[in-house]
Amino acid sequence: MIRFECDYSEGCIDKIQQALIATNLDQTPGYGMDPHCERARSIIRKLCGREDAEVQFLLGGTQANATLIAAALRAHQGVLAAETGHVNVHESGAIEATGHKVLALPANDGKIRAEQVRNALHAHFSDSHAEHTVQPGLVYISEPTENGTVYSAEELKAISAACHEYGTYLYIDGARLGYAMAACPEITFPLLAEVADAFYIGGTKVGALFGEAMVILHPALKKDFRYILKQRGGMLAKGRLLGIQFECLLEDDTYLNISKHAVDLAQQIREAGLNKGWKLYSASPTNQQFFVVPDAQLQILNQKYSYDIWEKLPDGHTAIRFCTSWATSQEQVQALVADIKAL
Amino acid sequence: MIRFECDYSEGCIDKIQQALIATNLDQTPGYGMDPHCERARSIIRKLCGREDAEVQFLLGGTQANATLIAAALRAHQGVLAAETGHVNVHESGAIEATGHKVLALPANDGKIRAEQVRNALHAHFSDSHAEHTVQPGLVYISEPTENGTVYSAEELKAISAACHEYGTYLYIDGARLGYAMAACPEITFPLLAEVADAFYIGGTKVGALFGEAMVILHPALKKDFRYILKQRGGMLAKGRLLGIQFECLLEDDTYLNISKHAVDLAQQIREAGLNKGWKLYSASPTNQQFFVVPDAQLQILNQKYSYDIWEKLPDGHTAIRFCTSWATSQEQVQALVADIKAL
Amino acid sequence: MIRFECDYSEGCIDKIQQALIATNLDQTPGYGMDPHCERARSIIRKLCGREDAEVQFLLGGTQANATLIAAALRAHQGVLAAETGHVNVHESGAIEATGHKVLALPANDGKIRAEQVRNALHAHFSDSHAEHTVQPGLVYISEPTENGTVYSAEELKAISAACHEYGTYLYIDGARLGYAMAACPEITFPLLAEVADAFYIGGTKVGALFGEAMVILHPALKKDFRYILKQRGGMLAKGRLLGIQFECLLEDDTYLNISKHAVDLAQQIREAGLNKGWKLYSASPTNQQFFVVPDAQLQILNQKYSYDIWEKLPDGHTAIRFCTSWATSQEQVQALVADIKAL
Amino acid sequence: MIRFECDYSEGCIDKIQQALIATNLDQTPGYGMDPHCERARSIIRKLCGREDAEVQFLLGGTQANATLIAAALRAHQGVLAAETGHVNVHESGAIEATGHKVLALPANDGKIRAEQVRNALHAHFSDSHAEHTVQPGLVYISEPTENGTVYSAEELKAISAACHEYGTYLYIDGARLGYAMAACPEITFPLLAEVADAFYIGGTKVGALFGEAMVILHPALKKDFRYILKQRGGMLAKGRLLGIQFECLLEDDTYLNISKHAVDLAQQIREAGLNKGWKLYSASPTNQQFFVVPDAQLQILNQKYSYDIWEKLPDGHTAIRFCTSWATSQEQVQALVADIKAL
Repeated sequence: MIRFECDYSEGCIDKIQQALIATNLDQTPGYGMDPHCERARSIIRKLCGREDAEVQFLLGGTQANATLIAAALRAHQGVLAAETGHVNVHESGAIEATGHKVLALPANDGKIRAEQVRNALHAHFSDSHAEHTVQPGLVYISEPTENGTVYSAEELKAISAACHEYGTYLYIDGARLGYAMAACPEITFPLLAEVADAFYIGGTKVGALFGEAMVILHPALKKDFRYILKQRGGMLAKGRLLGIQFECLLEDDTYLNISKHAVDLAQQIREAGLNKGWKLYSASPTNQQFFVVPDAQLQILNQKYSYDIWEKLPDGHTAIRFCTSWATSQEQVQALVADIKAL
Repeated sequence: MIRFECDYSEGCIDKIQQALIATNLDQTPGYGMDPHCERARSIIRKLCGREDAEVQFLLGGTQANATLIAAALRAHQGVLAAETGHVNVHESGAIEATGHKVLALPANDGKIRAEQVRNALHAHFSDSHAEHTVQPGLVYISEPTENGTVYSAEELKAISAACHEYGTYLYIDGARLGYAMAACPEITFPLLAEVADAFYIGGTKVGALFGEAMVILHPALKKDFRYILKQRGGMLAKGRLLGIQFECLLEDDTYLNISKHAVDLAQQIREAGLNKGWKLYSASPTNQQFFVVPDAQLQILNQKYSYDIWEKLPDGHTAIRFCTSWATSQEQVQALVADIKAL
Repeated sequence: MIRFECDYSEGCIDKIQQALIATNLDQTPGYGMDPHCERARSIIRKLCGREDAEVQFLLGGTQANATLIAAALRAHQGVLAAETGHVNVHESGAIEATGHKVLALPANDGKIRAEQVRNALHAHFSDSHAEHTVQPGLVYISEPTENGTVYSAEELKAISAACHEYGTYLYIDGARLGYAMAACPEITFPLLAEVADAFYIGGTKVGALFGEAMVILHPALKKDFRYILKQRGGMLAKGRLLGIQFECLLEDDTYLNISKHAVDLAQQIREAGLNKGWKLYSASPTNQQFFVVPDAQLQILNQKYSYDIWEKLPDGHTAIRFCTSWATSQEQVQALVADIKAL
Repeated sequence: MIRFECDYSEGCIDKIQQALIATNLDQTPGYGMDPHCERARSIIRKLCGREDAEVQFLLGGTQANATLIAAALRAHQGVLAAETGHVNVHESGAIEATGHKVLALPANDGKIRAEQVRNALHAHFSDSHAEHTVQPGLVYISEPTENGTVYSAEELKAISAACHEYGTYLYIDGARLGYAMAACPEITFPLLAEVADAFYIGGTKVGALFGEAMVILHPALKKDFRYILKQRGGMLAKGRLLGIQFECLLEDDTYLNISKHAVDLAQQIREAGLNKGWKLYSASPTNQQFFVVPDAQLQILNQKYSYDIWEKLPDGHTAIRFCTSWATSQEQVQALVADIKAL
């Protein structure tokens, strides 16, 4: 069985493993106050061109989202998000468990548009009965989205402008950020730091064992963030494990390079699917590829490959997802491509 | 600087590191549904003598506590705990963030007594105005306690009986469980599974990189636990990292052996302190040693050692804590012992 | 200005006022433990034909909904509701503030169908990734709905059956219950007690100064409900105020009679609107009437009448709502009818 | 049975009843946006000498406390309060249900001292591990306290100064505020508006049917308060019921006069108890009187009077509370005084 079902089937890149081995017996203070975390913070600030950025490390995406949102919102505020957004559908109600509603906007390709955001904010803030409803306090988007699509720089700037017109935070979930950067060179750390009030750089799905780096730009969100990090279980005792991993990923071009590797392989799968006549379920330039595939063909593929079932369609077809990662090899993709062709 | 300030200054035991290297490129399903987690669950069930136990892995202690408590309690219920209990003082309000009050009981040595528990439960359930107050729904204890003391088997059974008389859950925080087992052989997995409705086996502070194994005995707590695990950020994408670590710790005597190593070294420090005339702040048979030390002597120790400051006392003394772990060496302890003697 | 904008523009029916005067200096115990509350409970149990029903009084609808839902759900569960449901759109996130997500279903006329409920429950409970999503733990419907429509007895039974097939609670918001009963005689207290696990009998919008009577049928929801009532601010010190009001409304046919009065008047407005050629925005047999009206005509009506603006439509029309109540007089309606005719 | 067990055994003062009758059929907008609420707000602003004060009405004390605290605190903050404070012991965990811990301070007579507050705030904000603990974000006191004691103007100013030194809010629960004002003329509305960031003027226990007037001074607490009022169930549909009651109480000296009436009668009971040789359980100058009474004497009193049992004492004594109110008559007190004398 060759697994294409997700980008977290293996452990971590070799460089991280070596660094963990090399530092294993070093003694450091706990809770993210060690030299590795400090250095990783410094690297991230430099990459963003923002010496004022607050950087804290968390263990996973659901935790990162819930912690940032708990830190950002007052009791009556909610999160504006795509109906397909991870916080809306795949976190078991983690945001609501912090007391805040997710206000879902339609999003065919996983993206919401600046105009939707502006309309929603305008509708709320111009409503004389607004106080009977949830106030959007933060806009959540994912870059790339859960559907593998990428917001352009222009789109991000437009959403950011809409948010800030109404004093609403913009927060970007970068669980797979590297793949957006690899696919669209205009997506850069300084751009994210410019448009967002906070965003996170995903490690779990981009070569790390686990871990996400939260980058906070807005002063109100920086204040006391570490209390909430601790409260939500995100303050790792051996915090250096996170610092070491982000040092490895970001001290040189590793993060971008492994993302490019995955994106290149994913594009080969895309070609193969299109050549086979499969319809794209979502037009993704990143490491996730979504196709609508006849069930009969899937039965054949099932013998050798695992992939993710996205949606059962009514007419004998299924929407599926193939994922690649740093760990995917050219050989694995070649095998899949050949087998698609031979279907 | 030799660090005795905590038991999480280093990475992990060599065996775990080797296992992580060996499995790094294996492909496995995510979220704790892989063969390593399954095997670790099976080992733990066997160690407890309870094939019906539900075992789930979490990333850290604060998360483990908040998740179990969120799963256990209804909206009007709270947690009865020692005033020194970790959930009461060192989790930044994580329990209250789940909506539940911690009802603190006096506890000079970190332990609460069965009689205290029974009195508190009786007082509540016999009060005609009880509905104006928080109902104790769960009793939280730590084994060993935050002060290094250990509940005896008899004490655990008595607390368990008091809880179950009133239909109240007993939950045991085993962040440092191995050290209690090493210090007091009557503390065993089957005993814990007998007295508790749920408990966790600590990994972070006992040789793992990170991770805690929650063992759930009560059927009502098992139901749907994984939803809440996901909601609270505890469902690790690369869940096998936790399975692998607990396989390493528990498939043989590793967990107990590294705990004994630490306890033995801690007892050498205890001797040294007592010989020096230091008063014990807490009578701990485990890997944490608490002393009341003159500040003048601490100034000398500060040049070579780090330890944890527990409480500033009024008269030129300070209560401090030394910790040992799997990573502490006989040489490090010998140096400390000699330097204490020479003060 | 004659107000048709809502059914809570005035105080209360004369009978309630007299009862409050008559009892004002009586001394009674607080918190709903007085003889008036006891008698009102007894009346409601008899009306429902359910001696086992638990009856508790709350102050308003948002509080009633949030309290019942907080009592019913575990941390990972949510509420299935019409997208137009009061809990989804008009309670400022009160449900999310209890930690629970509202899972919205499309509902053109304010009603959800048994098939929608069954499909949603089936989709969840048959999904192998269900634990990554919110589990529907309770279905919320309003009788009548926010759009004035009424679930038939058959529809209620079908929804109830769908819920109970999956072990999901059915909860009915009866803020305007009297109007559904007045409009559709098959809607009765015994029917509600048969299909629902809990429902409330609305007082605020049906002749009382304020207050709602929660009727709880399911044993698990009865247990400790008063703790949560207190916690959520619903345990009125002078609880008898609620008991007295529900005695007045329900000890004879008052509740039904005042509802019929309002419904009869509303139907006169409905006639007038239809005769004018206004399109119904919602086909309501109850005390709320929704029309699509040209803005030019509204400008004329504005001089004498207030009504509720429901939705601005794009083409020079507006959807509006007229409400009647116990306090609306035949003269007021006659004036409105004549003025609609004369437009 | 003559009831002295609480100050909410009867309905409301006659003046309020007359006003409710007189306005019953008036039509007004809902949710506290009516002319009566506006006038009551204006009166309160003038009484406080603060035109900038935001005034909102709530239904009861538990709701008032939970709503203000939910509006004030960020996720990691808690409430510093006397261990005897209403929010700590008698609200069924309402504050924790908003996600915030109550940090209890010892308080023998129901009062906390400025020095305690300053020490607690200093200890937190100077602790290098503060982020592992709950940050005090608000200090809660009651005036008068739950024990009937009264903070002097000087004490209030000192606590206020301690709070504001650390950027912590001071919030005053005035459930029985009138009785403090009646007992201690230096306690005035302008004083409360000067020292507090928010406080509420209690109606339920001082002559109203129900209702509390929240007065908010700090700009950050004013912002969007009505959203949270709605979310927590405090936005009464027929909001004018609250406006009318506070107009009646505060447009002239009614509030103070009825409070004086109750305090005068309470002092007669105090005399009687002291003459009898009863020990004061708490030295209260207000409408609550606390005594330590031999159980044998209570058995005799039980035949004619109800009172509140405060604490069972070990030696055949019980601490009890007598309450007076606007509704208590001189005859009732005379009877009690005579019967105490005759014991």
